[in-house]
Amino acid sequence: MPRHFLHTGDWTRAELERLIEAAFRFKRGEDLSQPLLGRAIALVFFNPSLRTRASMQLAVQQLGGYPIVLEPGSSSWTIEFRDGAVMDADKTEHVAEFVGVLARYCSGIGVRVFPQLRSWREERTDPIINAFARQSKVPIINLESAMHHPCQAMADMMTIREKLGAGRKRVALVWAWHPKPLPMAVPNSFALAAVQMGHELTIAHPPGYELDDDLVRDLAMLAHDAGTRVNVTHEIEEAFDGSEVIYAKSWGSRLFYGSPEEELEMRAPYRQRWIVDEEKMRRTGGAIFMHCLPIRRNVEATDGVLNSPASVVIDEAENRLHIQKAILARLFGGAGS
Amino acid sequence: MPRHFLHTGDWTRAELERLIEAAFRFKRGEDLSQPLLGRAIALVFFNPSLRTRASMQLAVQQLGGYPIVLEPGSSSWTIEFRDGAVMDADKTEHVAEFVGVLARYCSGIGVRVFPQLRSWREERTDPIINAFARQSKVPIINLESAMHHPCQAMADMMTIREKLGAGRKRVALVWAWHPKPLPMAVPNSFALAAVQMGHELTIAHPPGYELDDDLVRDLAMLAHDAGTRVNVTHEIEEAFDGSEVIYAKSWGSRLFYGSPEEELEMRAPYRQRWIVDEEKMRRTGGAIFMHCLPIRRNVEATDGVLNSPASVVIDEAENRLHIQKAILARLFGGAGS
Amino acid sequence: MPRHFLHTGDWTRAELERLIEAAFRFKRGEDLSQPLLGRAIALVFFNPSLRTRASMQLAVQQLGGYPIVLEPGSSSWTIEFRDGAVMDADKTEHVAEFVGVLARYCSGIGVRVFPQLRSWREERTDPIINAFARQSKVPIINLESAMHHPCQAMADMMTIREKLGAGRKRVALVWAWHPKPLPMAVPNSFALAAVQMGHELTIAHPPGYELDDDLVRDLAMLAHDAGTRVNVTHEIEEAFDGSEVIYAKSWGSRLFYGSPEEELEMRAPYRQRWIVDEEKMRRTGGAIFMHCLPIRRNVEATDGVLNSPASVVIDEAENRLHIQKAILARLFGGAGS
Repeated sequence: MPRHFLHTGDWTRAELERLIEAAFRFKRGEDLSQPLLGRAIALVFFNPSLRTRASMQLAVQQLGGYPIVLEPGSSSWTIEFRDGAVMDADKTEHVAEFVGVLARYCSGIGVRVFPQLRSWREERTDPIINAFARQSKVPIINLESAMHHPCQAMADMMTIREKLGAGRKRVALVWAWHPKPLPMAVPNSFALAAVQMGHELTIAHPPGYELDDDLVRDLAMLAHDAGTRVNVTHEIEEAFDGSEVIYAKSWGSRLFYGSPEEELEMRAPYRQRWIVDEEKMRRTGGAIFMHCLPIRRNVEATDGVLNSPASVVIDEAENRLHIQKAILARLFGGAGS
Repeated sequence: MPRHFLHTGDWTRAELERLIEAAFRFKRGEDLSQPLLGRAIALVFFNPSLRTRASMQLAVQQLGGYPIVLEPGSSSWTIEFRDGAVMDADKTEHVAEFVGVLARYCSGIGVRVFPQLRSWREERTDPIINAFARQSKVPIINLESAMHHPCQAMADMMTIREKLGAGRKRVALVWAWHPKPLPMAVPNSFALAAVQMGHELTIAHPPGYELDDDLVRDLAMLAHDAGTRVNVTHEIEEAFDGSEVIYAKSWGSRLFYGSPEEELEMRAPYRQRWIVDEEKMRRTGGAIFMHCLPIRRNVEATDGVLNSPASVVIDEAENRLHIQKAILARLFGGAGS
Repeated sequence: MPRHFLHTGDWTRAELERLIEAAFRFKRGEDLSQPLLGRAIALVFFNPSLRTRASMQLAVQQLGGYPIVLEPGSSSWTIEFRDGAVMDADKTEHVAEFVGVLARYCSGIGVRVFPQLRSWREERTDPIINAFARQSKVPIINLESAMHHPCQAMADMMTIREKLGAGRKRVALVWAWHPKPLPMAVPNSFALAAVQMGHELTIAHPPGYELDDDLVRDLAMLAHDAGTRVNVTHEIEEAFDGSEVIYAKSWGSRLFYGSPEEELEMRAPYRQRWIVDEEKMRRTGGAIFMHCLPIRRNVEATDGVLNSPASVVIDEAENRLHIQKAILARLFGGAGS
């Protein structure tokens, strides 16, 4: 069984720290090694992507490898991932063959596969990326699954280090209103990585927007291990007071998972208040503003915030490239990596 | 007129043997030549593709070339291929210009173009790939047309050689039930190449699923030339008795070509029996199981067969890469190729 | 602010001449420099493309660079380009972030973005490509916008030079009937570049198919500066008499911009006469026939014209590759470029 990169929880803090250090060496131009020379990496996008696609293609290419981009179709789910299924309906290929063949062509497989936003009970277990990992004899890299987006989270951790230096920071994950319910992969992975890295985490969201119960339990345990803590609040202002990092992100409620119409009604009252604006930012005393992008301007955060020096969203996106090179070098590099 | 790779019938047995030998040299890592250095190959997918796309991109790249993947749209046919057409309807470009321009940019053009499954009389002549070949001043490589899939067939022949050694084998092409009628390119090309290579071929299918009359006549003549024979049966069990290779594939009936609803009714009675399972495989006394993929598990063949050591479907897919490198090297290599 | 390549009007005649000379050096194989070595260029296609996509990928690659092709979706406009917009509708990302991030990954950004054919008043200002240019810290290359297609126009100028030698030529831009109203980018850019290069230009179109007023005014001024003139006529035959270049192109009327049904009625009477055929070509006494492709055979021009030695449309398409290499080398090359 190869070592995959599915979520940061599988990796120790020391390993994550080393990834960040390696990423800075790539960013500073100190590491010009090409561990992927002569090797191909498949990048499979079941869902559309611009940033991830561009940065991963470039990461593979700069490491000397050859990226093969495959887009099996964003609107239809054509891969069967359940064991023992009788495939007489719309699924045209089983993950066993899909992954088995790609592993013969490529040294690793990056996979983007969003949740279908139908069954919370099922999708909270991240079944598809886990089926890929179970079947694959080569490393699987999660490029955003139903429940995790570890490349984003690691770029976020790198950006916090870059802007604020090493050590524990007061970090706030703040729910934002958005015209439609979005997946939870980014907030899950950000919260997980932040706590693993020892940051003090505040999560602010309206009632009903709780993260997954198991994840919250994991966060508490990891915080305890790291000597820090997680604070959850329904008051947006509380997230800003004294914080050094404001990380805005919208996500959908588990309560109306799969019912976007009802979810919209549920979130309607929060539109006015749950936006990051300059007034709230002033409560922080100089926090940086982060977002994984794409962001809805004047909906999740105002132009004033995004155009201010506090916003580091472009650096954060750039760091995707560097951290992904570090992750690829770690998975596919030599013994010394 | 350049030498194209449209179907194996245009190539002698000796040439096909040399392709297979070259493919093994690539697979064993003995041939690291880069005959495509500094050259581009267009890969035009009128229909979606994962395996062919990945393996062809990689083949071109490993030979030093630069693959340009173009996807003119899988749902609409935007290329006019009839001479003299007045193009005032939905076709936006004539194959003459499409191919003429690509031939200026690229040294060769791979084309995937499925049948529209409308008119058997028209599509049995493979009009679109032939229009490409007629217009092109650079080699056209058939990446699956209405009636042929020669890269797949050559990967199949290579796999038989790899698993069972050289010489005549008892090979069975077995129709399988599938929830929808599929094109005949794979069975056509497999049967053609198997007979060209001197194998003893049994074709088993329900009544009404006959292959094209001209093709069947060609198979008989080629078998005579090669000192072997073709046996057609409506009894699936007969295909298994004593066979060394079971090649499963579903295809649609010419009788209801273009009428998928009626075709489904026609095939309904065959679902229970026309599946490859372990019981049937036991009749062979140790045959290998082959399929071009994607395969519907527990519909075309059972999990038991696919997960058994008899299944070589992943090796078969891997061999696509090696044989395609051999084909490219043959078409675009130097005088010694 | 970087130097963009948005339309030829931003560049002097001397600069355009140097681009053409550089393109010939690439075509003759005299220039093998790789100014893009180790650099990536994003190629963003909001609209589908075959020729531009193939030739730009190849141009970047032959110059040593790495092309990253992104297709944000041809059917939906997902980029918000208006400053200050409240993004609570269907646009998922603002051009500020889209361009800001790509500029971190890539040294330049090629953009194809057709008009939406809704509001003439708005689209005549080419708002989207201009928003890209305003936001970008790296050079933007226009791969066809609502109002301009400068890479095509420069390939056209190169082709005229290649076929007819240096100096002033009598050049005719001739409207052609087409089953649907098309954008004006190609005629705009061809007319602009032709006059900038000092050619004597005749524009023939039916009444109601006038080019943009500001553009026509610019053409007159540029013609005056270059010591040549622009002649506009509603008589197609007049365009042929004595011309050395016939450049056919269909475009839609500003009068029914956004109303394709009514536009079709308006153009119906012109179908018989506004086609380039051999009889009209005979009036020229040996003109070359040009078209940007794709062309509707026997609708815009007859098979007789397209299959005759007068047609240079394939050379013209090939020259896209060479001139684009010259443009890229100019934008991204060293101080000496």
